[in-house]
Amino acid sequence: MQDTQWMARALSLAKRGMGRVSPNPMVGCVIVKDGRVIGEGWHQKCGSLHAERNALAACTQDPAGATLYVTLEPCCHWGRTPPCTDAILEHKIARVVVGSMDPNPLVAGKGVQILRDRGVEVETGVLQEECDRCNEVFFHYIQTKTPFVVFKYAMTLDGKIAAYTGHSRWVTGETARAHVHETRNWLSAILVGVGTVLADDPLLTCRMEGGRNPVRIVCDSRLRTPVSSQLIRTAKEVPTLLAAVEKNENAGALEAAGAEIVLCKEKEGRVDLADLMVRLGARGIDSVLVEGGGELAFSALEAGVVQKVQAYIAPKLVGGKTAKTPLGGAGFPTMDRAVRLRDVAVTRLGEDILMEGYVPCLPES
Amino acid sequence: MQDTQWMARALSLAKRGMGRVSPNPMVGCVIVKDGRVIGEGWHQKCGSLHAERNALAACTQDPAGATLYVTLEPCCHWGRTPPCTDAILEHKIARVVVGSMDPNPLVAGKGVQILRDRGVEVETGVLQEECDRCNEVFFHYIQTKTPFVVFKYAMTLDGKIAAYTGHSRWVTGETARAHVHETRNWLSAILVGVGTVLADDPLLTCRMEGGRNPVRIVCDSRLRTPVSSQLIRTAKEVPTLLAAVEKNENAGALEAAGAEIVLCKEKEGRVDLADLMVRLGARGIDSVLVEGGGELAFSALEAGVVQKVQAYIAPKLVGGKTAKTPLGGAGFPTMDRAVRLRDVAVTRLGEDILMEGYVPCLPES
Repeated sequence: MQDTQWMARALSLAKRGMGRVSPNPMVGCVIVKDGRVIGEGWHQKCGSLHAERNALAACTQDPAGATLYVTLEPCCHWGRTPPCTDAILEHKIARVVVGSMDPNPLVAGKGVQILRDRGVEVETGVLQEECDRCNEVFFHYIQTKTPFVVFKYAMTLDGKIAAYTGHSRWVTGETARAHVHETRNWLSAILVGVGTVLADDPLLTCRMEGGRNPVRIVCDSRLRTPVSSQLIRTAKEVPTLLAAVEKNENAGALEAAGAEIVLCKEKEGRVDLADLMVRLGARGIDSVLVEGGGELAFSALEAGVVQKVQAYIAPKLVGGKTAKTPLGGAGFPTMDRAVRLRDVAVTRLGEDILMEGYVPCLPES
Repeated sequence: MQDTQWMARALSLAKRGMGRVSPNPMVGCVIVKDGRVIGEGWHQKCGSLHAERNALAACTQDPAGATLYVTLEPCCHWGRTPPCTDAILEHKIARVVVGSMDPNPLVAGKGVQILRDRGVEVETGVLQEECDRCNEVFFHYIQTKTPFVVFKYAMTLDGKIAAYTGHSRWVTGETARAHVHETRNWLSAILVGVGTVLADDPLLTCRMEGGRNPVRIVCDSRLRTPVSSQLIRTAKEVPTLLAAVEKNENAGALEAAGAEIVLCKEKEGRVDLADLMVRLGARGIDSVLVEGGGELAFSALEAGVVQKVQAYIAPKLVGGKTAKTPLGGAGFPTMDRAVRLRDVAVTRLGEDILMEGYVPCLPES
């Protein structure tokens, strides 16, 4: 088998840590000797052993002289666990094949260098793009200290997120809806505008089997979220943050019900979203899913805090001049001022498609 | 080579007739002897020789004993040209491989039967789906006597056909725009609402090299198209129809400028689109491209006259609560009443995608 095939295996192991390792990266590792896997492992949970050590511990024979495939450069520093480079050297691994280089300034090429200095053959950049993408949240968060923000929506082929009546169950089919729950499991938090809470009274939990609930955040400048809403009624079980510009007379009841109020800077009378992201990052929230509405999404896009866009598109036409579209707000005035996504990928999900891409930089407005 | 490979060659020859053969079908033919092509041809122009006869005429050696691949069942009746089955028998072709069966009631299996009765080995259904699709216009038109109607639009990933200012040049990139001109070359006519004429003053010609201009039709119940519009100023060069419910005081000047007025039944104060399609079919117009605006498109969809939808989607976000979407009108009230396309195909065109599919039947409203 080729290096890329073993790395693909390591990558699929890495993804088993999805939703469990935040704010650490997902990492997978495969140890191969004489053309056979003798050990494999992955980083399972923040604070527990790294993938390399799990794989070494799982070896069914002496790994001396083996090749170790790992999706991310091995660490060379003491964190919550001892350096992985030490374990690789102790076990006399002959060759190490690396996917991504670690952007963490504490590692950043030093892990690879230490191994080479000690005579280990090291190959880097195998399936790098896939490995980098697997940890796009980690890479963004460790470099910016703000969460990786994904704007996600489901619309009809004529650009509507609901019929003119507001009816929206469902736009997409089962396969696409299951995929959304995977995303909720992947990301640490979910952000909606208070308008969406007032209109839809959503629960915003992850309904995937074995999934983990994201922290729920409402952008609610004036604390209008009702105490009777599903979000607040479940705030003692699922962490719920209200981003506001001031504490008003509603604050007491909301806090008593279990919600936490995060006071943010004000910008044009509303929560300054860039400031909110800094505060969320400081709390260890590495990723946020923006689910709507269109007003909040446009503000986030305009503020330059969105990194990725995921559009689920159903091949149906619902029409309606007044039916809602995924992105509202003022809008950009010309097509060349529109935010043009890069690295666009298209995936078929049953009858529907997912078109996703990355926001290049702060749009000029 | 396999039968499917020779048929694929015949299919690509067939498509050379695109935009030239209407209202005839596109047909391609390849004659193979001892594993080599000895002749090929296609139906080049309405009224000229059929593909089989062109291929036979082009043979570089005696076709006796050869296999003939043809995308559509050979005709067995006298039309403007003699029956192709006669030519196949005369030239002692040993085996005939057919893509589509001819839905024309004058042929419909009889062509294949005649050949079999005379001892020719006949195989049918090779690449049938692709061959059928190649002639979807012909198949629809010959069975319904009304044009095959395609609703086409280009939108951003957030469902807008223009910025809130009306700016729309360009939504999609060059590859997608070139593809649209191919569609204009493929279809016989192009239909817009008078609102689009008043707002955009379009020319609606085919700008593809060597392309052919479609007949331009404006759905203009009250004849509001300005004599000074680009459409009317070029009406003497490119056929231009105005579908109206009555001739009013503007009729004379429009007709003098070269436009033709098609009077249609009225439905809720406007042109009855189903009636318009019957009239267009009777004039030999086998296909219509609906380009907008969103009001006309919704009326057409609701009236059940649309067969196919082509949505070009650009991976950009322009936002704007008031920005126009591809489909307006009243809209369907719930998601389960939306028109759900079938046989959906997704094609990447540069940065953009084309998502297309077929309207199953008249939506209930």
